[in-house]
Amino acid sequence: MKTVYIVRKEHFNAAHKLWRDDWSDAKNEEVFGKCSNKNWHGHNYNLYVTVKGVPSPETGFVIDLKELSRIIKREVVDSLDHKNLNLDVPYLEGILPSTENVIIKIWERIEKPIAEAGGILAKLKLEETENNSVEYFGGAEPF
Amino acid sequence: MKTVYIVRKEHFNAAHKLWRDDWSDAKNEEVFGKCSNKNWHGHNYNLYVTVKGVPSPETGFVIDLKELSRIIKREVVDSLDHKNLNLDVPYLEGILPSTENVIIKIWERIEKPIAEAGGILAKLKLEETENNSVEYFGGAEPF
Amino acid sequence: MKTVYIVRKEHFNAAHKLWRDDWSDAKNEEVFGKCSNKNWHGHNYNLYVTVKGVPSPETGFVIDLKELSRIIKREVVDSLDHKNLNLDVPYLEGILPSTENVIIKIWERIEKPIAEAGGILAKLKLEETENNSVEYFGGAEPF
Amino acid sequence: MKTVYIVRKEHFNAAHKLWRDDWSDAKNEEVFGKCSNKNWHGHNYNLYVTVKGVPSPETGFVIDLKELSRIIKREVVDSLDHKNLNLDVPYLEGILPSTENVIIKIWERIEKPIAEAGGILAKLKLEETENNSVEYFGGAEPF
Amino acid sequence: MKTVYIVRKEHFNAAHKLWRDDWSDAKNEEVFGKCSNKNWHGHNYNLYVTVKGVPSPETGFVIDLKELSRIIKREVVDSLDHKNLNLDVPYLEGILPSTENVIIKIWERIEKPIAEAGGILAKLKLEETENNSVEYFGGAEPF
Amino acid sequence: MKTVYIVRKEHFNAAHKLWRDDWSDAKNEEVFGKCSNKNWHGHNYNLYVTVKGVPSPETGFVIDLKELSRIIKREVVDSLDHKNLNLDVPYLEGILPSTENVIIKIWERIEKPIAEAGGILAKLKLEETENNSVEYFGGAEPF
Repeated sequence: MKTVYIVRKEHFNAAHKLWRDDWSDAKNEEVFGKCSNKNWHGHNYNLYVTVKGVPSPETGFVIDLKELSRIIKREVVDSLDHKNLNLDVPYLEGILPSTENVIIKIWERIEKPIAEAGGILAKLKLEETENNSVEYFGGAEPF
Repeated sequence: MKTVYIVRKEHFNAAHKLWRDDWSDAKNEEVFGKCSNKNWHGHNYNLYVTVKGVPSPETGFVIDLKELSRIIKREVVDSLDHKNLNLDVPYLEGILPSTENVIIKIWERIEKPIAEAGGILAKLKLEETENNSVEYFGGAEPF
Repeated sequence: MKTVYIVRKEHFNAAHKLWRDDWSDAKNEEVFGKCSNKNWHGHNYNLYVTVKGVPSPETGFVIDLKELSRIIKREVVDSLDHKNLNLDVPYLEGILPSTENVIIKIWERIEKPIAEAGGILAKLKLEETENNSVEYFGGAEPF
Repeated sequence: MKTVYIVRKEHFNAAHKLWRDDWSDAKNEEVFGKCSNKNWHGHNYNLYVTVKGVPSPETGFVIDLKELSRIIKREVVDSLDHKNLNLDVPYLEGILPSTENVIIKIWERIEKPIAEAGGILAKLKLEETENNSVEYFGGAEPF
Repeated sequence: MKTVYIVRKEHFNAAHKLWRDDWSDAKNEEVFGKCSNKNWHGHNYNLYVTVKGVPSPETGFVIDLKELSRIIKREVVDSLDHKNLNLDVPYLEGILPSTENVIIKIWERIEKPIAEAGGILAKLKLEETENNSVEYFGGAEPF
Repeated sequence: MKTVYIVRKEHFNAAHKLWRDDWSDAKNEEVFGKCSNKNWHGHNYNLYVTVKGVPSPETGFVIDLKELSRIIKREVVDSLDHKNLNLDVPYLEGILPSTENVIIKIWERIEKPIAEAGGILAKLKLEETENNSVEYFGGAEPF
């Protein structure tokens, strides 16, 4: 069995802030630093979606990349691109939009549609800046 | 006379929107598209500052890069990083924060301090996304 | 007058070969090396289109990037992406598809539509590989 | 035992198409989209080869990178660079040259030579475009 | 339990050579090639530090990135940046500064401080050039 | 006349320090900062060479890129790669190896060989780090 991992990159640009209403301004500033700016800041996010599977003998595909791209756009990019992660996204309501929390929610959005398209979601990577990114394997710990 | 151009890259992350209060929602949406989202969006901006001059026989420098970096940070990055370009920046007040308008204001902020440090500001480049950027030569048209 | 240069990046993937029918195989191999492989090879091309102008007081735009992107896609990407530059492109017929020759033809395709959209085409850059690219200013020599 | 993974990047430029002769034109177009263009298209491929091992106390090397580079060039790059993946490569004959299928064949080509040079091939990554890539662990599923 | 992996990139510029005093010049040249140049050469190194953990319900953080960055700077960058890896670094004394050996020593420097800050060091990646890099999981072999 | 600019990228890894023997240690440290470390540091340098000309009607080339690459390797890379810029390079003797000074010397090395190969050297760009680079037009000031 020759399992191959295929990776598709998509991106979105969004505003957010790290801020808790139940904390004082000083506490927010102390914990979240510059990221707590009340009037928001933003990022260009790159999202890498890894799907695993055995290539189809008929098409050579683990999954049709056009279909994978459509799923990511429909489930993730359309709701996050040029949006405010704190205010505009129903499935992020009540959640501090750290990259850690956002990547978990993205996994929950696309795991099932990818399975329905015949693939297995294996890994997500979300880059917030050139220096900061997170990776997620559905909660598992491969290393 | 051997003029050399030296380029320093800095970056900042900011929120903004393209929006005119004197226009209807529909007009804003029509002209500015996704960029008009009321609740903001944001970007990782890369700024490239080009200074020209003849290298000093004593130091081999057109300008001390440590000093150039300090000027850019003090005049630009400190006021734009993790800020809202529409709300938080005194020198952008009343200005639509398109990359075109922002790059002109950055030039005005740093031209004189760079001259006082012995250099000549020759070019700015501001990248808003991987696909969109602007360049500015102080208004001149080298090509 | 504050002229700003705005740059839009698009890309396309294409096959080509450098080959002259009026030359022997040996001559083609000698002059064009690996690029003369009869069965083609290909590249991921990145195209950077620079338009100059004074930002509109109303919108802050030199040119509407959405419109610029549409022009490049309609005039260039649609006819080159996933195509064979020697066989599939009417406006490259009879032309050796070196990057030099291709960039000149791209200029001819988009100069007028960009002017009609209110911009001035100022520069093209076409990257063929990470190591090889060409730049074109409509034939002018700014440096 | 301190196992380290060393990664070497090489690249090649090639033409290919996704096309089955036993399918109609319409079926090819439906399944493979733009990639089915009869006259080929092409890409700049980046190949990352990961070898694992314990660094030699004598040299500090998991494997001599010069030797690893020679193996990849001899076994992979020489036969794929500036070639047509459908027509020019004996070990890809009869195989749909999707990135999934190509990466499996590359593994088969270099696993043994790397073992003979004292290393263990642990992972391959093949980038076809900036947005699409595949990873392969010899069929294993580390995550 | 939703384990997330967070990655922080830092960089340093250093000189080194691959050279053994107990070998002849010819042997050094034969084994280490250009890297054995007696008068040193150097690189821009990029270091990626991956920390795993479950995001805090309070902050959404696996680890405070500001604190992680401080640890890497204090333990690694301050002692390696603009230094000679063979001569200037106490914890590399007596060690051939191959990337393999350096990455093992970096792990030993930061594993405990990261644990004290509440994270688990999971992976290091050290890029020496665009083409050569190493990865380390504390000696473990996830694949 | 359709002048096209063609750009070739090459790279080299080198050690250097910014240091004047006729200055005290304190003065060197004050002016050159970290770059004055006595035991050297180093960089991965990227060199971009721009040649201008009218594409040949016969080959579509401004200059044969294989020949341009050979010239850069013979005149520049062979003498700088894996070398010490202060100690190992005859044509840099007595010169502070700032990027400004190095780029001027590289121009002097390759201007004539490129002319003999039928091209006109138009611009050099030398990247020392991701954040610092210099550009040179033979002393001219296009902007």
